[in-house]
Amino acid sequence: MSRQELPVLDAACCAPLTGEALSDESAAELAKGFKALGDPVRLRLLSLIASRKGGEVCVCELTDAFTLTGPTISHHLRVLREAGLIDCQRRGTWVYYWILPAKLAALSQLLDVSGAAAPASV
Amino acid sequence: MSRQELPVLDAACCAPLTGEALSDESAAELAKGFKALGDPVRLRLLSLIASRKGGEVCVCELTDAFTLTGPTISHHLRVLREAGLIDCQRRGTWVYYWILPAKLAALSQLLDVSGAAAPASV
Repeated sequence: MSRQELPVLDAACCAPLTGEALSDESAAELAKGFKALGDPVRLRLLSLIASRKGGEVCVCELTDAFTLTGPTISHHLRVLREAGLIDCQRRGTWVYYWILPAKLAALSQLLDVSGAAAPASV
Repeated sequence: MSRQELPVLDAACCAPLTGEALSDESAAELAKGFKALGDPVRLRLLSLIASRKGGEVCVCELTDAFTLTGPTISHHLRVLREAGLIDCQRRGTWVYYWILPAKLAALSQLLDVSGAAAPASV
């Protein structure tokens, strides 16, 4: 993936919130990722994919883990994919999903405020 | 803060997505935090607060950084506060905001998939 394809994510990548204030553009790009994560079903789907030891999961297993319909699961998977958090490949009857660690790492590092100073007055 | 007060956050705290699949309860609790971050204005507000060297920011400065109305900024700050990402204190005329590193760290660590294995087939 070239810089030209994802310039905003590249610019925002890896700098924690404590570094400097985000630009409008970086905030808009990064907020898309958090918005995709801001739903309990999507977060569970992502954790089911991420915690799979082999690295990828058949959509048939994901559907079995919920009481939701197939189309609803597919919608949530599409939101995660459009946010750059997962990718997939069809093989025969089934689609297989895996996480994209780069985007997750960028969001993780943004929230890593472990070096933050405590407020002076509290 | 006892386990009884925040059992779900305690249980979910600090385990990356690659560890094991999230429970319904943990996913619901953690998704609230990501939902609060899933808006560009809130993400910029959080970055303005987090990147302040003294550790806290007067609401008067936050309002000046946007072309939005005061009530709109206040609404977004309330969402961040209700998600446990920031806290505030009134002193005289103004309210001062600072980040709450524990919740940000929990969300950051959840997304830290740096130890994830690559999918076997890609």
